[in-house]
Amino acid sequence: MAVFTHIDAEDVAILLADYDIGSIVSLKGIAEGVQNSNFLLETRRTEGSTERYIVTIYESPALLKDLPFFLSLMQHCAQHHINCPLPISRRDGALMSHLGGKPAAIVSFLNGTGLRNPTARHCAELGAGLARLHQASTSFTLTRDNDYGQAHWPALFATSADHIDAIMPGMKDEIARELERISQLWPDQLPQGVIHADLFPDNAFFLDHKLTGIIDFYFACTDFFAYDLAICLNAWCFEADGGFNLTKAQALLKAYHGERPLHRDEISALPILCAGAAMRFLLTRLHDWVHRVEGALVTPKDPIPYLKRLRFHKTAQSATDYGVEL
Amino acid sequence: MAVFTHIDAEDVAILLADYDIGSIVSLKGIAEGVQNSNFLLETRRTEGSTERYIVTIYESPALLKDLPFFLSLMQHCAQHHINCPLPISRRDGALMSHLGGKPAAIVSFLNGTGLRNPTARHCAELGAGLARLHQASTSFTLTRDNDYGQAHWPALFATSADHIDAIMPGMKDEIARELERISQLWPDQLPQGVIHADLFPDNAFFLDHKLTGIIDFYFACTDFFAYDLAICLNAWCFEADGGFNLTKAQALLKAYHGERPLHRDEISALPILCAGAAMRFLLTRLHDWVHRVEGALVTPKDPIPYLKRLRFHKTAQSATDYGVEL
Repeated sequence: MAVFTHIDAEDVAILLADYDIGSIVSLKGIAEGVQNSNFLLETRRTEGSTERYIVTIYESPALLKDLPFFLSLMQHCAQHHINCPLPISRRDGALMSHLGGKPAAIVSFLNGTGLRNPTARHCAELGAGLARLHQASTSFTLTRDNDYGQAHWPALFATSADHIDAIMPGMKDEIARELERISQLWPDQLPQGVIHADLFPDNAFFLDHKLTGIIDFYFACTDFFAYDLAICLNAWCFEADGGFNLTKAQALLKAYHGERPLHRDEISALPILCAGAAMRFLLTRLHDWVHRVEGALVTPKDPIPYLKRLRFHKTAQSATDYGVEL
Repeated sequence: MAVFTHIDAEDVAILLADYDIGSIVSLKGIAEGVQNSNFLLETRRTEGSTERYIVTIYESPALLKDLPFFLSLMQHCAQHHINCPLPISRRDGALMSHLGGKPAAIVSFLNGTGLRNPTARHCAELGAGLARLHQASTSFTLTRDNDYGQAHWPALFATSADHIDAIMPGMKDEIARELERISQLWPDQLPQGVIHADLFPDNAFFLDHKLTGIIDFYFACTDFFAYDLAICLNAWCFEADGGFNLTKAQALLKAYHGERPLHRDEISALPILCAGAAMRFLLTRLHDWVHRVEGALVTPKDPIPYLKRLRFHKTAQSATDYGVEL
């Protein structure tokens, strides 16, 4: 959570010549993001009127080939009234620039703050916002494979399988059995489109209980809409002690359904989609845990809470267990 | 350069109940500071009108006993029209709060940006700003010893003396001789008061070539005003290749003198004060270099440029060598 590439006002002043957003008033590196460096930029077109932007420098080479996809997606969503960062076009029409020798973009600033303890009211806002995002995505024509999708989980499992029992004896077999079960029950066809795929509470901003921003589209990909919903149920509706908060799940699902009515197939698939979403984050967290670098800036997240979620979803009989009364 | 204590909007919302600056609109951790964590806070009192502040959490226990001094000084200077952060008073009148279990303060936000390559014009602005700061400090009644002042240099030298020749053979003796020379020539009496003592380019903000902010008062102490000027000559008037830029020095000195006329004694002491200022930063950089921790977040700064400055000042015959034509 830091700035990896150091730039200063002079670098940004040069960059701004390519844009029509005025001249620099202030610039602060912000301590956010692990794959990129972010700066809060304030500009002024005319005396007294300032505008705020986020300047992002993309640090991860893996991100580069998909950058046009991510930036076009954000532009599409913002233009369809989703509260997400709007990438600012350069004078030559391009969305991507270079800064500090790396790819960079300028996007609009969003008010609001992330919440550590979202309430059921926030979950309802989030559910409605997610549904609107999915609806906006239906008119977006680009696609991107989900590199962390169900088909990739066995290979992801293999990268840390031999070290898993050292974390918790028996976990390796438990995951292997659950991977097999998920594989057999995973739906073939459900409504799909571009999903956010990483909509955790730190990627959503609220102000006065209203959802003011969805950020960090760098895992966005083409997959089942209801799988995105399952990711949110995992990320928003479990308490710190591991307990499932049915009230929050009901609020999230009901608000989603109110904006984008769920198909019967999506509803019946919820338990297995939720198990899959828990599996996806369990596997990436296990990978990062097993392959962690001592002294690295980013502390790997504890995988165990996602093992516990996985167990919860395994016992779920139907969507009713998530509070669906649709 | 990071955020060491993680707080979120809920923590700040609780803190804001003690202040009269409205409610939280946005909060970003900013990648600045090595002794403290800083957050850019935006608040709103009434619909549509937002205000910006910096929230600082003080991480260094060494800073704590002097925090009332630093905050009072900033308040005094801001009230005397110096462009520096104004600590915001709580409803109970206190300037200091607690956040994340640590001492914290909220100060006003300043427009402008630090410059990597300040010009002579910026040096003139800085010189005038420094003089105004010194004049404002004459009515400030608190005092604070300079922990890095001339009397402390021999002890500071001793902390790394045995490792210095490994960096550059002969440097240990060279510094020892120069310490002796400085000790003999150091002035007994010059006009004094509270000085900034660390006014490097990254602690000054500019907008449209005007000085809009002086920040980071956490080395401020009671010492000779002209010593503060000597620190600035070292920090602002040498080029990256080590060359002394006489034009910048002239601009800085002339502008300072225009706001606060220098005494004859201060002028004649300039060469030894400049040597002392170079010695002070050479010694702290040597200390940090020798005692650096592998893998630490902060990369120690190269001490050698300050050895070169020291050599320059040793050869200076009089203030004329700094462009004084007062």
